[in-house]
Amino acid sequence: MTRIAYFGPAGTFTEMAARRFEDLAAAGGLTVPGVELVATERIAAASPIAALTLVADGEAELACVPIESSVEGPVTPTVDTLGFGPLLQIMAETDMPVAFSIAGRVPLGQVRTLAAYPVAAAQVREWVAAHLPVAQVVPASSNSGAAQDVSTGRADAAVTTALAAQMYDVPELAGGVADVADARTRFVLVGRPGPVPPRTGSDCTSVVLDLPSRPGSLALALAEFALRGIDLTRIESRPKRTSLGEYVFHLDCVGHIDDPAVAEALAALHRACDGVRFLGSWRRSGGPGAAPADPGDAWAWLEALRKGTR
Amino acid sequence: MTRIAYFGPAGTFTEMAARRFEDLAAAGGLTVPGVELVATERIAAASPIAALTLVADGEAELACVPIESSVEGPVTPTVDTLGFGPLLQIMAETDMPVAFSIAGRVPLGQVRTLAAYPVAAAQVREWVAAHLPVAQVVPASSNSGAAQDVSTGRADAAVTTALAAQMYDVPELAGGVADVADARTRFVLVGRPGPVPPRTGSDCTSVVLDLPSRPGSLALALAEFALRGIDLTRIESRPKRTSLGEYVFHLDCVGHIDDPAVAEALAALHRACDGVRFLGSWRRSGGPGAAPADPGDAWAWLEALRKGTR
Repeated sequence: MTRIAYFGPAGTFTEMAARRFEDLAAAGGLTVPGVELVATERIAAASPIAALTLVADGEAELACVPIESSVEGPVTPTVDTLGFGPLLQIMAETDMPVAFSIAGRVPLGQVRTLAAYPVAAAQVREWVAAHLPVAQVVPASSNSGAAQDVSTGRADAAVTTALAAQMYDVPELAGGVADVADARTRFVLVGRPGPVPPRTGSDCTSVVLDLPSRPGSLALALAEFALRGIDLTRIESRPKRTSLGEYVFHLDCVGHIDDPAVAEALAALHRACDGVRFLGSWRRSGGPGAAPADPGDAWAWLEALRKGTR
Repeated sequence: MTRIAYFGPAGTFTEMAARRFEDLAAAGGLTVPGVELVATERIAAASPIAALTLVADGEAELACVPIESSVEGPVTPTVDTLGFGPLLQIMAETDMPVAFSIAGRVPLGQVRTLAAYPVAAAQVREWVAAHLPVAQVVPASSNSGAAQDVSTGRADAAVTTALAAQMYDVPELAGGVADVADARTRFVLVGRPGPVPPRTGSDCTSVVLDLPSRPGSLALALAEFALRGIDLTRIESRPKRTSLGEYVFHLDCVGHIDDPAVAEALAALHRACDGVRFLGSWRRSGGPGAAPADPGDAWAWLEALRKGTR
């Protein structure tokens, strides 16, 4: 039995992401070395940190947590636990549209009270103003809790997920509701450090750099990627908790640790940085993407020079 | 009358920050060119975006909004509005400890229901488990709304701010409550583009870079700071809304646009980037800090060479 911890409660977008990872594995589209993804048990955790801690402590093999939202930005508790907490490794990612279901026991026109998690309420404010102008928003404890509030009679309708509406048997009145079109959240599947999932040719790699604290150290680190033609896809500074005004840098790049250009860049960073934490290489969810060019020819040329066989 | 919009409702940490800016100005510690900060009217807005929009539309002269939390990370609605919305300019910053007041009408030992904004509930979870183990958390619409919930009898106690507890006349049962010690939030005072507040010698400057989409462009941009000995204090990539997989970069550095090193770096970026959005130079709230070294000698030397007067 493989235990997957997730940021709960049941019925949230994160549980939907965990189910998608399971479906992907069942269809042969996801491999986590050393972990069977066939018989799984899902464990709801109270926060992304709690879900990741269950993996670090061996109470679960994997954790499914949100890491980035196109509207809200990085999910800092996840990012900081991966950057500063026990060593863990990202094995896979998926991204999902964040669009809500409006579910209720009365028709839309008769909704007087609307249960909503405040973060969700902020993301559907315009839709609610346009479609439910007289509804009073009642704060709920989560997207899933909002559906539960309808099932217990605390509210007429809820801003919730399709999964939670189904779990609490509350009919969906409207689907795909979001003020910002194409709002998406990226979820990662995290395990304990181990063998890296195989290179697919459309991968990304994530590291956390602890750089010497002097002007220019970040520019030099980025040059290791730039000089090898490796595209960066995300960069973010995060303050160290131990000392004010010092930072680590989260960098995501295109390519896999088995791509020679990425391997060279990581080795160069290992020499230049006070510390490099490898967060993993995994298949990008955005479909096919280029891997960095292989510098292998250059090494063959150098080897030939050394041997005098050019 | 100077109107200051802020992310409301009344009684939140953001209103406390707005009041602090007013107090600073009254004490002569804050100057915003062209804006009188003596007679002020505070306008509560429904979100950071709404507060900033009031300034852009001329409905308010200034907006006070959170921009970064040491626990939660960047406040993305603020960051993205400054990066992609109408041109605005940061005039000042302040940072405040984020520690909550527990306020209620019954003694701590008798609290059965605890109103809390979910974001706040997550930041005091351990304290509540230790001190109010039997209390049931009732979601509130904001930190201020939690105090209101106590005043209307919806809950026995609230996780709230000192200001809101006072506004709703709810006695404070415990103060300075936070699971993470030293959690802080940084607030900025934002106006329409105009003259820059005077250099103080302990300033920071913020820009948003729109870089050519090729490997190495970020490394080259950072080199403009590195080569001039300018320390970066924050870097963050933010996806462009218009095209997937393209980013802008928010950079904060030490120094003022009137520091020659910073001025040179900005001019160099203007040549190298597709676009540079200047978000302002203002006095750092962290107390005294070094300004970058003045390259003025180098220019005097060059001028002497040109004139043949060395």
